[in-house]
Amino acid sequence: MTDWQVVNGGVTAPRGYRAAGIAAGLKPSGAPDLALILSETDAIAAGVFTTSQVRAACVDYCRRRLNKRASTRAILCNAGQANAGTGKQGVQDAKETAQLLAQELLIDPQDILLASTGVIGQRMKMEAFRAGIPRLVTAASQEGGDAAAQAIITTDLVPKSIALETPIEGRPVRIGGMAKGSGMIHPNMATLLAFVTCDALVSTALWQKMLNRAAQRSFNQITVDGDTSTNDTLIALANGQSRTTAITEMGPEAEKLEAMLTEVCQYLAKAIARDGEGATCLIEVQVSGAPNEQAACQVAKTIVGSSLVKSAIFGRDPNWGRIAAAAGRAGVPFEPERLQIRLGNFLLMDNGQPLPFDRQAASDYLKQVAAESSLEQEGQSMQRRDNPVIIAVDLGDGSGTGKAWGCDLSYDYVKINAEYTT
Amino acid sequence: MTDWQVVNGGVTAPRGYRAAGIAAGLKPSGAPDLALILSETDAIAAGVFTTSQVRAACVDYCRRRLNKRASTRAILCNAGQANAGTGKQGVQDAKETAQLLAQELLIDPQDILLASTGVIGQRMKMEAFRAGIPRLVTAASQEGGDAAAQAIITTDLVPKSIALETPIEGRPVRIGGMAKGSGMIHPNMATLLAFVTCDALVSTALWQKMLNRAAQRSFNQITVDGDTSTNDTLIALANGQSRTTAITEMGPEAEKLEAMLTEVCQYLAKAIARDGEGATCLIEVQVSGAPNEQAACQVAKTIVGSSLVKSAIFGRDPNWGRIAAAAGRAGVPFEPERLQIRLGNFLLMDNGQPLPFDRQAASDYLKQVAAESSLEQEGQSMQRRDNPVIIAVDLGDGSGTGKAWGCDLSYDYVKINAEYTT
Repeated sequence: MTDWQVVNGGVTAPRGYRAAGIAAGLKPSGAPDLALILSETDAIAAGVFTTSQVRAACVDYCRRRLNKRASTRAILCNAGQANAGTGKQGVQDAKETAQLLAQELLIDPQDILLASTGVIGQRMKMEAFRAGIPRLVTAASQEGGDAAAQAIITTDLVPKSIALETPIEGRPVRIGGMAKGSGMIHPNMATLLAFVTCDALVSTALWQKMLNRAAQRSFNQITVDGDTSTNDTLIALANGQSRTTAITEMGPEAEKLEAMLTEVCQYLAKAIARDGEGATCLIEVQVSGAPNEQAACQVAKTIVGSSLVKSAIFGRDPNWGRIAAAAGRAGVPFEPERLQIRLGNFLLMDNGQPLPFDRQAASDYLKQVAAESSLEQEGQSMQRRDNPVIIAVDLGDGSGTGKAWGCDLSYDYVKINAEYTT
Repeated sequence: MTDWQVVNGGVTAPRGYRAAGIAAGLKPSGAPDLALILSETDAIAAGVFTTSQVRAACVDYCRRRLNKRASTRAILCNAGQANAGTGKQGVQDAKETAQLLAQELLIDPQDILLASTGVIGQRMKMEAFRAGIPRLVTAASQEGGDAAAQAIITTDLVPKSIALETPIEGRPVRIGGMAKGSGMIHPNMATLLAFVTCDALVSTALWQKMLNRAAQRSFNQITVDGDTSTNDTLIALANGQSRTTAITEMGPEAEKLEAMLTEVCQYLAKAIARDGEGATCLIEVQVSGAPNEQAACQVAKTIVGSSLVKSAIFGRDPNWGRIAAAAGRAGVPFEPERLQIRLGNFLLMDNGQPLPFDRQAASDYLKQVAAESSLEQEGQSMQRRDNPVIIAVDLGDGSGTGKAWGCDLSYDYVKINAEYTT
């Protein structure tokens, strides 16, 4: 199931994709802020969007588009303005950006999907789109994946992209992905955005099902601050350019493709969690012994979302009481007498009873994980390498397992979100 | 409905109650840590408890007791050890404390309810109970309400108690209450505890119904950090000593009593929210225009629990985008085009469109509310006087209204919860 390898190129690693990222003047900082992903041929598209009642114009636009037809040629994404809370004008602006790009690419505007991130309630800078889109199309290339990943970030410290390759029917099939988001909502800014490209040939219905499951096991299992954005968007394209036989139902090849899709989504999801505002480390909660996968995921996400657990990790405090308490309120019934809790290699609780453990050594484990988290310059952009803090919880009540990812809660989270006094 | 007056005495303000609070040596600090509420005659009791799967021994003890019989003579409450995560030994210890008190009061142990708060996973100091309980019983008096309120707090900055009086059938009926809790869970400490006394004569079934509704509109509508404790307990006694006719079904007198009970619970709930760890102000979210009360309460609680809204209030930032985004993810369907948001007297959004407003003046409003929050010495203990920051949201979709209370998220919250490195 996991015989894939990591390859370079992000969203342009799969065959038949071009991408670009340019500075179009949407961000006041002058940083890159307009990205394009282009499939040279028709690609099918699947999407997962925010469940919020307050949605950006581009989210409603994509949902309507995907309901009508799934074939897509391009995704246009801007950073700077979220185009949320902008009413009818925002809807009109979104349409116009699609038309501008369609004119330039000589394609139908219906073949374009849109995404935005940035400040809520501000109109998009239409003049910047008008001037920028022709440049963006010119810049698009098979090496443009990294530039595109750079152009969609806002307060993120690092761009987030990945590409994997696995043989299917003896032919290399690739999935590339990029994402942004360092809080579910940023200081007055919105959004988790993720884009996935694939060169397998898959039926639209199956691709959407795979994407739903992959999102459930990745993006839906991370939390930075519990705040769902108005713009959350995950779009996955598949253009069939690997020239494999069409995959239309589940089977060994489909499972292989879905496992790789899930891996790409999990990589991006973890990268977002690690880059959470103010975070000093990534936290992975592994839950086992649950009645089913859903229950396990629910407990894992509750623990990783607990402000008290997050504060304790920031304080390098092996505080099993908070982990147990968070598990207890997750809405999943279990017998407290069977609860087992591990932190890294330290067994803190077994059969519902606290165990004696080396508190200093457990605290040192937390210190070490955070110390090893490093931010490094790599080419044009910053990169991160690090292992997560592992919290493993067994409910002793079944075979369901699930994981969730988050980050610690630091002074800087409050600082970033309090000091953005406009 | 609101023709009550505030009276002194807390839980001993109603007729026929005595109380005490002493330092029994359970807290390492030597501060008061053991409290008793005693009804001179049989009182009926209603209770609402934590929904967590991980519960303290005293919570299970009370639930079993109230299922068997509702008559109660005394509530024994300790601070210092939560008696949660203590397994079978904890169950045994809880029983023994009831037996010790029963011997001293010459009553049946079944007539005693128990509550604990403090560190999770530590055994209660039984020697301190054995030595302290006789002193506690001796100390119990009709003026002991304030001492009892002082003895149940842990990291709370102020004790929380209130008493109200209203005429029923021309006779004065009183309800007194006290509570503690400054996070849903404290640094490794647990609990929201609240105790209410009343001298009305009410049927057990009706009293429990009233308490459920009052809890729904008060304690269930506050959040400091979203973490539900292992020990949350609300117990309300009614001993009939006001000598009014028995209230057994809803009607004008019952409504009056329930309104006063709700007011007592809301007062205590707000006091807990205001005393949230690290908080600089109380936040009240008022939601109107919802399909029903439950939906309104859900939206209100989601907004007041949003880390981003809380951080913005701490930063004195009139950030309507975060309020709208939190409303949108509350799980209640509404039309974003009808959304209206006010902050104090400032209308920030109407018909789903952001409005121009005096950003500096709105920020000054937040500064002023926080500046006016004062902590003052009053007699033996600290007291607070302050108005909340008001966030009013109208969904434009019905007549349901609801409120929720919380506090801002400050550096000190992270500090308190991170630096408790054990």
